[in-house]
Amino acid sequence: MTVLDVPSGLPAAVPTPSVGDPRLARLSLNQATTKRWNVAEAVEGCARAGVRSIGLWREPVAEYGLDATAKLVAERGLRVSSLCRGGFLTAVDPTGRAAALEDNRRAIEESASLRADCLVMVVGGLPAGSRDLRGARQQVLETLAELARYAGERGVRLALEPLHPMYCADRAVLSTLGQALDIAEAFPVEQVGVVVDTFHVWWDPDVWRQIARAGSRIASFQVCDWITPLPQDVLLGRGMMGDGHIDFPPFRTAVDAAGYSGAIEVEIFNADVWAADPDQVLATMTRRYVQHVQAAE
Amino acid sequence: MTVLDVPSGLPAAVPTPSVGDPRLARLSLNQATTKRWNVAEAVEGCARAGVRSIGLWREPVAEYGLDATAKLVAERGLRVSSLCRGGFLTAVDPTGRAAALEDNRRAIEESASLRADCLVMVVGGLPAGSRDLRGARQQVLETLAELARYAGERGVRLALEPLHPMYCADRAVLSTLGQALDIAEAFPVEQVGVVVDTFHVWWDPDVWRQIARAGSRIASFQVCDWITPLPQDVLLGRGMMGDGHIDFPPFRTAVDAAGYSGAIEVEIFNADVWAADPDQVLATMTRRYVQHVQAAE
Repeated sequence: MTVLDVPSGLPAAVPTPSVGDPRLARLSLNQATTKRWNVAEAVEGCARAGVRSIGLWREPVAEYGLDATAKLVAERGLRVSSLCRGGFLTAVDPTGRAAALEDNRRAIEESASLRADCLVMVVGGLPAGSRDLRGARQQVLETLAELARYAGERGVRLALEPLHPMYCADRAVLSTLGQALDIAEAFPVEQVGVVVDTFHVWWDPDVWRQIARAGSRIASFQVCDWITPLPQDVLLGRGMMGDGHIDFPPFRTAVDAAGYSGAIEVEIFNADVWAADPDQVLATMTRRYVQHVQAAE
Repeated sequence: MTVLDVPSGLPAAVPTPSVGDPRLARLSLNQATTKRWNVAEAVEGCARAGVRSIGLWREPVAEYGLDATAKLVAERGLRVSSLCRGGFLTAVDPTGRAAALEDNRRAIEESASLRADCLVMVVGGLPAGSRDLRGARQQVLETLAELARYAGERGVRLALEPLHPMYCADRAVLSTLGQALDIAEAFPVEQVGVVVDTFHVWWDPDVWRQIARAGSRIASFQVCDWITPLPQDVLLGRGMMGDGHIDFPPFRTAVDAAGYSGAIEVEIFNADVWAADPDQVLATMTRRYVQHVQAAE
């Protein structure tokens, strides 16, 4: 019987890697990719597929229970490659600002409980009604200054995620890796790093220079593809590796050359991926990973 | 009676400038903003609104007739601030490449006939099935080398337009002003310039340095706003100045400081703008222009 990839429906190009396949050693499932699974289901799914790291989200962790999640991943020997997410640091009113700080401190504590490799920070867009982009970017730096040491004291590393420029107004005023590094470098390397997410940075002509510059600042490497046309909700425009326009091996090579040896996380927000059987999503993910991302080795 | 802006429906914040108002001296209507008007209607509309320059598109010009259009704008003393558009230079097969060169040569000849200030170049996305972004960018440079002198000999200036990175895969592999300048600078300044379009570059933390660098390379300055959420067709995500997130005065100041003294063109692809009465669109455009763009002076 022909094995089919999801959601493309195309025949699988390579055999599904077995549990224990060393090529999967660094692969991580970001649980947003299997949105319909709760924490326990995602953990079991990773075990069945031979995936040894997981990126968790705060909301499903809270549903399952923070302590229960920490216990479960520890028992299963699953590494938590990231917790998503902190951030939204651009509120200007004192109440919004205090709420953001408080929420980020909780996220830091949760990251510590889960022994997550990093807390992913989506820094937030322009404050409501504001057109002061420069000011919002400056505020990210200032607010981080209040959080970085708090994170460091708990052994948590904040990972600044530059988002694709199409999210600049409403999600993240950090739009390039270079800009994220300009901010990260104001803090100790163990407190603040950056995320390299192919979806967000693939278009950037300066990205190779910035990945090399990033070096040990790389706290997370996330992969998914850029597909066209973009769907109505541009937040869901991510594709399975190989279904879109991104050439992954140069990214894998560059990130490895910069010294990053951590998890490689697959994070796909996509209605068709979410509609597919999650076990098939993981099977496709492992195949596409060895075909497109691992191929750089 | 309260005057209302379109398509927002909000009360006008300033009186509509009269015909002959010196504040409108540099304002240009890109005819894509009033899509339902043909060339003659757009020319008449500009006269009624006191707009003295127009950006034309090849398709409506062809419909009205190239010579008839040239005659009409000359009679009315209307300046043609741009012709849209040439480009799509990234085809890799010999047939596609030859067709692109031929089409661009025609566009250059049309620009010469219309005495347009520049021919806007949207350079094209990745070739079908290709993931070689670096190669596509290199090819833009190589194909331009075959067109720049042809343009120069006819007194036409090619204007490279960096498009927002969300169009990198399918519309234009030039994604930043800096990258467009890297290519433009390989050619004489009178042959190849760049477009500064607020919609495409507003998010770029490096844009101020690049506008200063651009200097006399600036061949066109286009303004429209970035609105959220993006519509289903992201090509239609442009807004009337003031309806979105872009702070225009710093752009106006930077472009002027770089030495640009040409037209300031309003180009809005937006279903709601297209559904509105075009005369009201022009009236709103002149009000918003003096309020948001002219305000920098």
